[in-house]
Amino acid sequence: MQSMIPDYLDQVLHDVASNTSGELADYIPELAVAEPERSGAVFATVDGRVYGAGDIDTEFTIQSISKPFAYALALDDSGFDTVLAKVGVEPSGEAFNEISLERGTGRPRNPMINAGAITTHALVGAGLLPPDERVDRVVRGLSAFAGRPLTVDAAVCASEMDNAHRNLAIAHMLRSYGILDEDPRAVVDGYVKQCSVLVTARDLAMMAATLANRGINPLTGDRVVADSVVRQVLSVMATCGMYDAAGDWATQVGIPAKSGVAGGLIGALPGQIGIATFSPRLDSHGNSVRGVALFERFSSDMGLHVMEVPAAARAVVSSNHVREAGTGALRVIQLQGGIRFAGAERIVREVVDDTPVESRVVLDLTRVSSIDDVARRMLLEIARRLTLDGSEVYLVDPEAMVPDPDPGDGGRITVVDDLEQVASRPHGTLGTLGSDGRPPTET
Amino acid sequence: MQSMIPDYLDQVLHDVASNTSGELADYIPELAVAEPERSGAVFATVDGRVYGAGDIDTEFTIQSISKPFAYALALDDSGFDTVLAKVGVEPSGEAFNEISLERGTGRPRNPMINAGAITTHALVGAGLLPPDERVDRVVRGLSAFAGRPLTVDAAVCASEMDNAHRNLAIAHMLRSYGILDEDPRAVVDGYVKQCSVLVTARDLAMMAATLANRGINPLTGDRVVADSVVRQVLSVMATCGMYDAAGDWATQVGIPAKSGVAGGLIGALPGQIGIATFSPRLDSHGNSVRGVALFERFSSDMGLHVMEVPAAARAVVSSNHVREAGTGALRVIQLQGGIRFAGAERIVREVVDDTPVESRVVLDLTRVSSIDDVARRMLLEIARRLTLDGSEVYLVDPEAMVPDPDPGDGGRITVVDDLEQVASRPHGTLGTLGSDGRPPTET
Amino acid sequence: MQSMIPDYLDQVLHDVASNTSGELADYIPELAVAEPERSGAVFATVDGRVYGAGDIDTEFTIQSISKPFAYALALDDSGFDTVLAKVGVEPSGEAFNEISLERGTGRPRNPMINAGAITTHALVGAGLLPPDERVDRVVRGLSAFAGRPLTVDAAVCASEMDNAHRNLAIAHMLRSYGILDEDPRAVVDGYVKQCSVLVTARDLAMMAATLANRGINPLTGDRVVADSVVRQVLSVMATCGMYDAAGDWATQVGIPAKSGVAGGLIGALPGQIGIATFSPRLDSHGNSVRGVALFERFSSDMGLHVMEVPAAARAVVSSNHVREAGTGALRVIQLQGGIRFAGAERIVREVVDDTPVESRVVLDLTRVSSIDDVARRMLLEIARRLTLDGSEVYLVDPEAMVPDPDPGDGGRITVVDDLEQVASRPHGTLGTLGSDGRPPTET
Amino acid sequence: MQSMIPDYLDQVLHDVASNTSGELADYIPELAVAEPERSGAVFATVDGRVYGAGDIDTEFTIQSISKPFAYALALDDSGFDTVLAKVGVEPSGEAFNEISLERGTGRPRNPMINAGAITTHALVGAGLLPPDERVDRVVRGLSAFAGRPLTVDAAVCASEMDNAHRNLAIAHMLRSYGILDEDPRAVVDGYVKQCSVLVTARDLAMMAATLANRGINPLTGDRVVADSVVRQVLSVMATCGMYDAAGDWATQVGIPAKSGVAGGLIGALPGQIGIATFSPRLDSHGNSVRGVALFERFSSDMGLHVMEVPAAARAVVSSNHVREAGTGALRVIQLQGGIRFAGAERIVREVVDDTPVESRVVLDLTRVSSIDDVARRMLLEIARRLTLDGSEVYLVDPEAMVPDPDPGDGGRITVVDDLEQVASRPHGTLGTLGSDGRPPTET
Repeated sequence: MQSMIPDYLDQVLHDVASNTSGELADYIPELAVAEPERSGAVFATVDGRVYGAGDIDTEFTIQSISKPFAYALALDDSGFDTVLAKVGVEPSGEAFNEISLERGTGRPRNPMINAGAITTHALVGAGLLPPDERVDRVVRGLSAFAGRPLTVDAAVCASEMDNAHRNLAIAHMLRSYGILDEDPRAVVDGYVKQCSVLVTARDLAMMAATLANRGINPLTGDRVVADSVVRQVLSVMATCGMYDAAGDWATQVGIPAKSGVAGGLIGALPGQIGIATFSPRLDSHGNSVRGVALFERFSSDMGLHVMEVPAAARAVVSSNHVREAGTGALRVIQLQGGIRFAGAERIVREVVDDTPVESRVVLDLTRVSSIDDVARRMLLEIARRLTLDGSEVYLVDPEAMVPDPDPGDGGRITVVDDLEQVASRPHGTLGTLGSDGRPPTET
Repeated sequence: MQSMIPDYLDQVLHDVASNTSGELADYIPELAVAEPERSGAVFATVDGRVYGAGDIDTEFTIQSISKPFAYALALDDSGFDTVLAKVGVEPSGEAFNEISLERGTGRPRNPMINAGAITTHALVGAGLLPPDERVDRVVRGLSAFAGRPLTVDAAVCASEMDNAHRNLAIAHMLRSYGILDEDPRAVVDGYVKQCSVLVTARDLAMMAATLANRGINPLTGDRVVADSVVRQVLSVMATCGMYDAAGDWATQVGIPAKSGVAGGLIGALPGQIGIATFSPRLDSHGNSVRGVALFERFSSDMGLHVMEVPAAARAVVSSNHVREAGTGALRVIQLQGGIRFAGAERIVREVVDDTPVESRVVLDLTRVSSIDDVARRMLLEIARRLTLDGSEVYLVDPEAMVPDPDPGDGGRITVVDDLEQVASRPHGTLGTLGSDGRPPTET
Repeated sequence: MQSMIPDYLDQVLHDVASNTSGELADYIPELAVAEPERSGAVFATVDGRVYGAGDIDTEFTIQSISKPFAYALALDDSGFDTVLAKVGVEPSGEAFNEISLERGTGRPRNPMINAGAITTHALVGAGLLPPDERVDRVVRGLSAFAGRPLTVDAAVCASEMDNAHRNLAIAHMLRSYGILDEDPRAVVDGYVKQCSVLVTARDLAMMAATLANRGINPLTGDRVVADSVVRQVLSVMATCGMYDAAGDWATQVGIPAKSGVAGGLIGALPGQIGIATFSPRLDSHGNSVRGVALFERFSSDMGLHVMEVPAAARAVVSSNHVREAGTGALRVIQLQGGIRFAGAERIVREVVDDTPVESRVVLDLTRVSSIDDVARRMLLEIARRLTLDGSEVYLVDPEAMVPDPDPGDGGRITVVDDLEQVASRPHGTLGTLGSDGRPPTET
Repeated sequence: MQSMIPDYLDQVLHDVASNTSGELADYIPELAVAEPERSGAVFATVDGRVYGAGDIDTEFTIQSISKPFAYALALDDSGFDTVLAKVGVEPSGEAFNEISLERGTGRPRNPMINAGAITTHALVGAGLLPPDERVDRVVRGLSAFAGRPLTVDAAVCASEMDNAHRNLAIAHMLRSYGILDEDPRAVVDGYVKQCSVLVTARDLAMMAATLANRGINPLTGDRVVADSVVRQVLSVMATCGMYDAAGDWATQVGIPAKSGVAGGLIGALPGQIGIATFSPRLDSHGNSVRGVALFERFSSDMGLHVMEVPAAARAVVSSNHVREAGTGALRVIQLQGGIRFAGAERIVREVVDDTPVESRVVLDLTRVSSIDDVARRMLLEIARRLTLDGSEVYLVDPEAMVPDPDPGDGGRITVVDDLEQVASRPHGTLGTLGSDGRPPTET
């Protein structure tokens, strides 16, 4: 069988090909010579599968798409406090080349406008690196996101530096406010190099997939930045990534995104996929015309909007029944699907509304597909409270969805691989938990 | 067993009680006499369970929290095009009482600032209702969100109307731009009534839960507004709901939210819960001090941030094995958990990477907890392609997760309730699909 | 002989007649029906002579030209402190219909924008009058500036009131800031009546001439407002009168001015003339196209720019000679022309550089055409110092240019009508000054 | 006798000495070490006399006071069109260090803010000079205004250049808009040198006096810039010279002025005097605290406000009588004082209202102290019209106030030095005008 995803991408790419509106970026000669008809679209899954159509291996410069990744590196290297003291997170409602500094402090409004991005560049390497080494760190960091070594396009870089007056203006302004405390020219030089890193649509999709995958590159398996950094970066992309069209994008597309003037556009859907498109003609906001059209299609066709409420899910409690009678009676609560707070709440309710009178209670996780921290803590709390109420509590957890099953103060829990293990053992033989929190006798 | 959720709410409410900073809204006398120490917090699940702590049944006026709900009603009544032509969706980065009209057109930047909210009020009822009937429609609409009949506080309303100069200023300005085309005083009068609707924290949580539940009130089961309206409203709350602290909120809390000057604050987490807090003292942004603190705790303690990437989920394909040998060989692909695009892609890949050579292929949905539109369409496309490749395709779907199983052009699929039904029948006896898309012989 | 001034006005009016660019104000129907080809120009001298050409007796509504005059009335009625606390004097660089309130206080930037003008209207009559009586006071005040009774055009007024949403917006905003403290509708109603006062170009020229004449109407001789008020009004007209074209006007025309949307335009050149033009087509700033062209011609042709430095004046000391010899020797210093500070300094220098050794010193003012306060005080100080040096000082002042000739502490001065009176009297017979400061024996 | 002007200056300086509020400029170390108690005040008359009190020969850097003078040089070198295309003339209502560029074009709002001043610097020398030579041209130009060779303070200049980030920001921004078309660093370097020119209060007063004297240095007699340039510079100083306090200054002081952060402050009163003060402590607008206080005193004590209407002047026509009877009858119109348009109009009216029937008409200018272009042209037109009416016209003009007495088309005029020359000659003997426009027989 052939996968229908490449077919879909081909189809959508074909649908937008008739749109020849927009203009090439022309503020530097190197961008103005791009081939305007080039178009490509790539999906990269959080486990590294790549689907593409069109020009997915054509190299172009990353430009502003480097901003969220450099922001991630800065947060990872310098810490949240340092970065937030220098760069805000508020939408500016302005075009990318507006200065938008906070009155009084001179703090750039967010890291997606140039002022914020220049400041962010200077915060990579925790402010400790000489400019050249910092550029190396940035290029290596972007490479880690992409999963292959990236390089700087020297010609574009030189061309941009010749036309960097607006960025130099911004950097000197930042220096005058003390937001930058080093030579503004060196920072702009480094920032221009950052923007001149060559990428393909395939690379960009993988970079986006790394964000979608909580900071771990799906290809290499390397953790590039911490979870909390990714959450921050995605939040800022969601509110500030599309400049003065932020609200339109948030309502119509609803995927945290970032565009670059060379025609790239990325989106990252947490836990699902990274998407990248490439088409050089830009609209008046500076976003790729076809790229925007493609994302609108993707969001609409595939329900990728972050505010899209999934259809009512099947109950997380798939069954709640009593097995065996008498003193050995066993209350079995079978769970299923992905469990987050709302799912855990349903389990709590199940137990509270119909508190088991049986002496043994089994929570069966065999069919559970995912469980997050709060749900895990709530399950353990259920176990603890049931213990205090006098029950023996068992967790059927063959794949260790709850890796550290310690219900804490007064609670006890026995982890088994199979419901039959509980059924077959007599009441009252609950073993001691081993140092790894799992009863060694049960494994 | 006692649920730990009320305990949790009590604990968090206790933790923030020491914070007595902030001031009561004092721009109208009726608000300035609120009891400053009142505090409450409520969770309402998408199936209607309510957990609360503190003052959850104290009545106060809804104020600006009415904005997203009136926006929902306006979208539902007047349609997206009409509403978007009059009110934008871009964050304004300004306080709630700034005018923030687009230069030239006079269109308010978004429906969460007063200018946008006043315009929105006028769009409820599709612009066809006399002012009094429009107010009725708004109050009934808010009541539908809350699941009980709400009323207007006449004293607060009168007090606000006496001090409505800023809103009158805005309304006259909107009238001068043609954004409003009726008597500005009547619109402001209606808008003030809308803001003076009395609610409790319990009501607000249920209203938020209605948004979290795709527009269907969890208590009454009534659809209040369409799905697409909810998505729009949540998107706008996410980017514009907290005024000039939108970016801080989006990064630190990450729950679409809205606050009111009487001390209310709501958040809606799509598919999970509605949250409401009540505490009258406000910070300099006009948001409830304790409310903001509570939401920060909720988001952090419970992983409720919309950009929080869930931990890597268990594979959607739980097993892929061949059953029975020879010509009757059966390829069984067992699925589990919630399936959206990314999950469906994994199934596609499973089939593509290892195309079944068996003549019969079974997709077993028994353990699937949810499936969205795109995943459903992709499953059917798999079935269609397998049919074209010469396979007979079976769907084990006892709970009709795929309600209309027509794979389209050239595809055929047989739906059964149990895998054994397939195993037991000989190859080549595939029945005809009934008019309901399900083979009548199988049920 | 025929005066060449009407010829000049005819010629210039003819020169601009070919310019048919611009548009009639159309925001209210009554203005849109004006006859676009009407044009007129009037000069009114500070002693009441009127020269005109074209449509100088056509009535139209005064509109914004009422602003400086109402500001004058407010300053006169409420005092500088009260008015300045409510309305600033800074240029706004914005169009007339921008709101331009100071952040925080809500104080309008200046009295020439609508927000300032509405506030100003409310300050006429010292805030003590009921709205109707205040309108009467304004109309009577404008009439006093014009020198004839003016009336309100009820049709225009009604038409404007129907379209007064922007002004109502502004007034409610001012009320919300406490800049206005009464019913905003009543103030706007009064302000609209103020703008609907009917005037002719002749009236406007006389109103401007009243400003040029230090607040005294040249026709009636009535003092309408105080000198200091006129200075303030002219200063504000100079910096804020032409909205966002203030700098262009200040450099190219250099006459304090004010325009109205009905096509009027006035300029007041302190001490010289009032000018008014009328032509209804407006440019994009809302100023009369031909009016602006006419003023550019007037300024350029007649050297009326306030920063135009007059050609080097003839020496204020026309002669300095000794008459008669011996003990009766008389030092005669003859002065001429207009004397302000710079002229008085020259006289001081004359006396200091060549201190008279003669026992009698005569300051002869016979040929002096004007003298201001500081020059008068300096002349008296010269006299005082000469007295202390031992001289007898005489002032030849037949027209009482120095009305109260008391040199103060230790100084003495004898005022005579004719130099011969001094020459003929012997040294040492200086008479005593009478109670009116003039020696009775000399008259 | 001692002049009272130094006494006055001493007194006023003493009066403000108790005011120790304000702060030294501290953005560069060199300014922060100024002696804060230094104070001085200087008056320089348009004929070069200097009065001073306090520290009038202390050197400090000119800073922003260089702006109007460099603007004058740029206008003179590059022409109005070129300069106005690059720098506007509208007040910005902003502090000196705001960027204030016009949206879209990037044109600085006016030459008094830094963006405008940097652009202006680049326009000195008509854009043809290498940076170093341009600095020489600027320093020589400032020296010409001061009447002595000025020099650059190398230490301050180096210190400023180290802290020039805001100016570099502005210059790069201007370069990005194409307002500057050369290396921004070189322009800022030159501009910083311009600001670092050392001056004394005495120098500044003389520079201001050069503006007050129509561009001719009172000391050297050299014309530094054209008349029309001075008018432009004074107009811009009047509206933009005091940054965001422009309106306060225009109403309260009313003298075109400019301040510098080193503590200097100048004012130029056209045709009268140049004023300079020096005191280093600055208010929040960046203006010298005592300097502002001194100017308020000067304006108020001496009636120097440009909108101050001089007291009603004595009639320009001092007498109008008939001398001798019969055919030799002579109509003598004696004029006096300074004559501008308004005065000339009075003369016209005198002749029109009472058209001479005598065959000979004499206009006697003996007592006229000044006469401007328009008045001169009007006098000649009177003569022409009287000639056409059949009169012989005589001008008594011993000091050649009307240097080129040609009444034009059909007019004839005889210039004499003394009225008796006319009285003594018989009617009808009017001589022919010589090539210099004056009858050779009369001299």
